[in-house]
Amino acid sequence: MADASRPRFKQFIGRTKITDGAKFDLKDHKTDWTDGITGGKSEAAGLLDEGVRWLAEEQEKLYAQDRWSVLLIFQAMDAAGKDGTIKHVMSGVNPQGVHVTSFKSPSAEELDHDFLWRCNRALPERGRIGIFNRSYYEEVLAVRVHPAYLEGQKLPEPVLTKDIWKQRCEDICAYERYLARNGTVILKFFLNVSKAEQKKRFVERLTDPEKHWKFSPTDLKSRGHWDEYMKAYQDAIRRTATPWAPWYVVPADQKWFTRLVVSSAIIEALSSLNLSYPTVPASRHVELEEARKRLLAEDD
Amino acid sequence: MADASRPRFKQFIGRTKITDGAKFDLKDHKTDWTDGITGGKSEAAGLLDEGVRWLAEEQEKLYAQDRWSVLLIFQAMDAAGKDGTIKHVMSGVNPQGVHVTSFKSPSAEELDHDFLWRCNRALPERGRIGIFNRSYYEEVLAVRVHPAYLEGQKLPEPVLTKDIWKQRCEDICAYERYLARNGTVILKFFLNVSKAEQKKRFVERLTDPEKHWKFSPTDLKSRGHWDEYMKAYQDAIRRTATPWAPWYVVPADQKWFTRLVVSSAIIEALSSLNLSYPTVPASRHVELEEARKRLLAEDD
Repeated sequence: MADASRPRFKQFIGRTKITDGAKFDLKDHKTDWTDGITGGKSEAAGLLDEGVRWLAEEQEKLYAQDRWSVLLIFQAMDAAGKDGTIKHVMSGVNPQGVHVTSFKSPSAEELDHDFLWRCNRALPERGRIGIFNRSYYEEVLAVRVHPAYLEGQKLPEPVLTKDIWKQRCEDICAYERYLARNGTVILKFFLNVSKAEQKKRFVERLTDPEKHWKFSPTDLKSRGHWDEYMKAYQDAIRRTATPWAPWYVVPADQKWFTRLVVSSAIIEALSSLNLSYPTVPASRHVELEEARKRLLAEDD
Repeated sequence: MADASRPRFKQFIGRTKITDGAKFDLKDHKTDWTDGITGGKSEAAGLLDEGVRWLAEEQEKLYAQDRWSVLLIFQAMDAAGKDGTIKHVMSGVNPQGVHVTSFKSPSAEELDHDFLWRCNRALPERGRIGIFNRSYYEEVLAVRVHPAYLEGQKLPEPVLTKDIWKQRCEDICAYERYLARNGTVILKFFLNVSKAEQKKRFVERLTDPEKHWKFSPTDLKSRGHWDEYMKAYQDAIRRTATPWAPWYVVPADQKWFTRLVVSSAIIEALSSLNLSYPTVPASRHVELEEARKRLLAEDD
């Protein structure tokens, strides 16, 4: 269905997809880039609709085949548009095949385990799409920026070395390679919003009573560490962008463009799997035909 | 308590502990070696008792400290003594601090995930000892020897390469390194029984009605692939014996010796952590003293 416009989708990806972290520099990625789409929001809406329909069809094949699973990871500063993107890109897909997990502050039980433990429990089954709204990447982002979080993890002294962030990234890479080898397609999205745009969105939330619920006083706490967060994101992406689990650094100052890029990236990844409905072996055709005959011969 | 005899425990370990798989050859490991213990079973019983008492004390400190976790993995051919070893080495330790998981044939839900998924859910929390009776190593043992098991895992065609066993071992190594970095002490035991001793034990089970329940007709199926299993064990140990997750190749023709070696290995590993009860900071002494006074002043 969206086949005709697939080249259009692909072109957004070139600038945003990182498969080799070594060359990555956050400064090269503008937060307000929109690839010169002239029609702006309304042109994008049409493309996004197509994307949603295409995705709904592919997800059915994914589910019927029951071999691959898909893991979509969303990371961003507050108000960058994670929730809205998930809503707009995935609405339309059969919810039986999609599971969203939002990772908040870890529980006491979760802190009693290694940091991947809680994410591991939430991994998508074969045939499903799993979405992580925040993820184990917070372990090299928020936990890195706020040392008190690391203290809360109750790690034994000897493992708390100065290499811990490098080691965590290395462990994450190995984990994602393992998941890919076992049939999980991994896509990681960093919604790259500017500090100015975040301010605008925060003020909106604080002005409109219907948006008050979206604001938490702790949001300002992270904003106060903006530069440290950007450094942590840059380091994490450098160390964990790989061919088997690429990062997409998505411009996030324009919500409609964010959604279009995310949709395009998912479409490109699923296209490459060449999904199709499982075929029934010829040996079972006779059996199916007999079942059909028996049903038709039943007294109504 | 067992401190005086700790050198005695240590000496069993030298010949059985493998921290560098590259040099490992299963042929160098006798199944009936007993380190010339002259008193045999009765001398061993005394040592084992000491070991159990020492372990019970250390486990209390581990639990109180709530920092490290300990993972003990048991792998072996049938009737090599896994269950009996777990029973004899760990009985006496507070069950609140120990959790044993036996991994049988995977469920449909488990097959819908990557192969580490079900083991990951069963990992010990900080302060606990987790015991895996069989483990993810079956993925490079039973699954390697019986191709039908691999088919049942519903992996997508492109990931089923001829490197799959090498890749699985590599993934397991990375996973164990990650766990070690996050405060898990890992010990892996291969109870190395001879084919002749297994036959003897099977015949016993089939002769004594009280032992009939221990025998399953599928046990003979694995025995029929003995040499392939030994090859798979050798390859797995070669590829996954590391300083952070050593294998212990434990002679298993004499049950009392098996238990003694396993007990010694655990004691050595826990000793190296120098566990102690957490101390209360001086600032809290006043508070504790006040609580004591208030309690004593209560009307009875």
